[in-house]
Amino acid sequence: MFKKVLVANRGEIAVRIIRTLKEMGIASVAIYSTADKDSLHVQIADEAISVGGPKPKDSYLNMKNILSAALLTGAEAIHPGYGFLSENALFADMVGEVGIKWIGPRPETISLMGNKANAREEMRRAGVPVIPGSEGFIRDFHEAKAVAERIGYPLLLKAAAGGGGKGMRFVYAEDELSDKFDDAQNEARSSFGDDHMYIEKVMTRVRHIEMQLVRDENGHVVYLPERNCSLQRNNQKVLEESPATGVTPEMRAELGDIVTRAAQALRYENTGTIEFLQDREGKFYFMEMNTRIQVEHPVSEMVTGIDLIRLQIMIAAGEDLPVTQDDVKVQGHSIEVRLTAEQPEKNFSPSAGTVDFVFLPMGGLGIRIDSALFAGDKIQPFYDSMIGKLIVHGANRPEAMAKLRRIVNETVIHGVQTNRNFQKALLDDPQVQRGEFDTRYLENEFLPRWTESLSIKD
Amino acid sequence: MFKKVLVANRGEIAVRIIRTLKEMGIASVAIYSTADKDSLHVQIADEAISVGGPKPKDSYLNMKNILSAALLTGAEAIHPGYGFLSENALFADMVGEVGIKWIGPRPETISLMGNKANAREEMRRAGVPVIPGSEGFIRDFHEAKAVAERIGYPLLLKAAAGGGGKGMRFVYAEDELSDKFDDAQNEARSSFGDDHMYIEKVMTRVRHIEMQLVRDENGHVVYLPERNCSLQRNNQKVLEESPATGVTPEMRAELGDIVTRAAQALRYENTGTIEFLQDREGKFYFMEMNTRIQVEHPVSEMVTGIDLIRLQIMIAAGEDLPVTQDDVKVQGHSIEVRLTAEQPEKNFSPSAGTVDFVFLPMGGLGIRIDSALFAGDKIQPFYDSMIGKLIVHGANRPEAMAKLRRIVNETVIHGVQTNRNFQKALLDDPQVQRGEFDTRYLENEFLPRWTESLSIKD
Repeated sequence: MFKKVLVANRGEIAVRIIRTLKEMGIASVAIYSTADKDSLHVQIADEAISVGGPKPKDSYLNMKNILSAALLTGAEAIHPGYGFLSENALFADMVGEVGIKWIGPRPETISLMGNKANAREEMRRAGVPVIPGSEGFIRDFHEAKAVAERIGYPLLLKAAAGGGGKGMRFVYAEDELSDKFDDAQNEARSSFGDDHMYIEKVMTRVRHIEMQLVRDENGHVVYLPERNCSLQRNNQKVLEESPATGVTPEMRAELGDIVTRAAQALRYENTGTIEFLQDREGKFYFMEMNTRIQVEHPVSEMVTGIDLIRLQIMIAAGEDLPVTQDDVKVQGHSIEVRLTAEQPEKNFSPSAGTVDFVFLPMGGLGIRIDSALFAGDKIQPFYDSMIGKLIVHGANRPEAMAKLRRIVNETVIHGVQTNRNFQKALLDDPQVQRGEFDTRYLENEFLPRWTESLSIKD
Repeated sequence: MFKKVLVANRGEIAVRIIRTLKEMGIASVAIYSTADKDSLHVQIADEAISVGGPKPKDSYLNMKNILSAALLTGAEAIHPGYGFLSENALFADMVGEVGIKWIGPRPETISLMGNKANAREEMRRAGVPVIPGSEGFIRDFHEAKAVAERIGYPLLLKAAAGGGGKGMRFVYAEDELSDKFDDAQNEARSSFGDDHMYIEKVMTRVRHIEMQLVRDENGHVVYLPERNCSLQRNNQKVLEESPATGVTPEMRAELGDIVTRAAQALRYENTGTIEFLQDREGKFYFMEMNTRIQVEHPVSEMVTGIDLIRLQIMIAAGEDLPVTQDDVKVQGHSIEVRLTAEQPEKNFSPSAGTVDFVFLPMGGLGIRIDSALFAGDKIQPFYDSMIGKLIVHGANRPEAMAKLRRIVNETVIHGVQTNRNFQKALLDDPQVQRGEFDTRYLENEFLPRWTESLSIKD
């Protein structure tokens, strides 16, 4: 096992990882930007080393400085957390090159799954159902038209090498296809120097269902019960839960088989998550794969008792998975909401400042709060606005929901604005309480009602 | 189900109960002494009502005021927590008399088990192994001598109606028996107006093993995995865990049968705990029964997933137990340590004052902190010094122990002195880490070493 591990992240996930390292008897090295010198992850780590200025590119994305910190402190492995460099294949490769173990999948896997067109083709070849669309790449309007005739409208044109919405167009009817295809392909060529395109059907009334997998370097795989992350705003998850209402044990086993097949086809190493859309008939369609630990991993831990960060470290150290698929049971229900330093009342604009007072209502059975907050903590404007995760576990979904509403109610933070009242309202919503929502529910139905209710109060 | 419940307690247990009431959708009424008006249990309850001055006898032991508060607020039931009036049969009876449900066993049961001589006889009749000694009461020296010849020395003479050490004598050899019997009986007569005596063998190198039972009003019983509470100081538990090292599934089932038999014989209602001494051959001997929820109940909740406070409320409302014995599994290992506002370095003298800063390291899998502390909280000199419970759950005992050491290390409280450093030293002890200790270990072996280590540092 490693003697020392560097955690290349900040905030709650850095704290989360350092704590598990401590529990495993492994020395921890924190990195920090100059803005974060008094942060909790710096305070609890065995060693801490500054890697640059407040802006992410100067510190948490500064590959050279992070590598130097690892070499300087003699860290044997690097845990990247989520965000920042966690899905950067180049960095993962550099880490390996200097003889340090990357706690995550191989750089080739990160790279392959990072290109969404390649990921889609790779999954299709592995027998994973993908969103209806083109097979392989398309090069011209005639190929596009043939696909469109097969799958129908609306559809999405996407640049194979794409990202960030570049080279992407929604097409609602046939008469738009020709012009939009030219537009998208031109944009793809000028943005990425690559005009390969692909097409996906636009699916409506779908849920975001994802499945966590873990594969060790000797080929053992387990999958964990699915998570429902359909409540989203701007493609950011707002509430996550496991298991998903309406997913039967048979559906879970079917999805598990798909995910296991994909993991074996990729010779995947460490933890990963495959995201699917589920339609109203209950069918699953591959959306994308995340090659890192995810924000919402605690809900999977709560329903299985499996510590995913511990598994990541064990697997990176070459150990076999300590559990088999038979050991993974769904026990009760877990839900997480994200606490953010932002003002939902003002279009979710971020809030920064010093936290004067914080009361997080841990206590009782099935309550977990993952956070780096403390009284005196400074919320920086440079980073993601998430400041904590409120996580509950109950014997069933109504019990978990009751606990979550209780702890959101009890939460008190002074000094920065938070989304606590928004989360409270969301949990008061009858459809949320019943688990009846698709990926558009929060933005198209809940938010307009909530915004209106605010103006009435004013 | 009840619509409103009054919680006749303060501190962490009042907070714990109010939170479960909220999760069950039941309105909560807090009571408070004038010293506690800003306490957490008052802040989170739906209603709060003052019941008198700071001294316990004026408020939390003030039966008339508490009953008035319950009647005034329309509470349908009273949860007494632990300590204060929780084992007061008279109060339980008065509560019933005014038409309010007592969340706990019947007053007759509280009364029966409150008299230790009666409890011993009751258990013996139910087939529960008791500490070797007299059968029934003894009235004179000749009867005492016959018992002594059978069980050997050292032995303990006890007043049947006793309590608080009155009418109790250790006898180390036969030549002391006559005088000490007379002394003890005279003291019993003058203290209690009752000279019935009984005798127990003094057992050495024993562990304190206890078992939680739950019985509903329709006669269904379950027992939970045993707890080891052998680390004690002044008969106060310092660390508790479940399950106990060295207790095999067969021993657990045997103890479970004994406890179930006792519960049925007593027609016991609600939760209770039977405390045993376990000798080095693994045999169990009845010590006493606690007819209330106990401080250490969370470790049983953590290894079974069963919310004991919720069960208490359901049972008092006349509901059947929602679980059977087959549903109760031992999952992993849980340990609790008690955080107190006292100075172990100064002979454990209590500490009072205002808490300026508090950091309790909740977060991660298997961490639970039950506490009423918050920044600005006032620790009162009038009440028990316990200010919180640090509870962990791991896949096995070493994992749980590693988590506990980690969270004790991270705990920071400013403004009052605490036993955090003492607990840290206790958890650093190799014998504690291995689970090798009896009821005398802390006082006879650990404390002298620890005290010496302090003087060396000075």
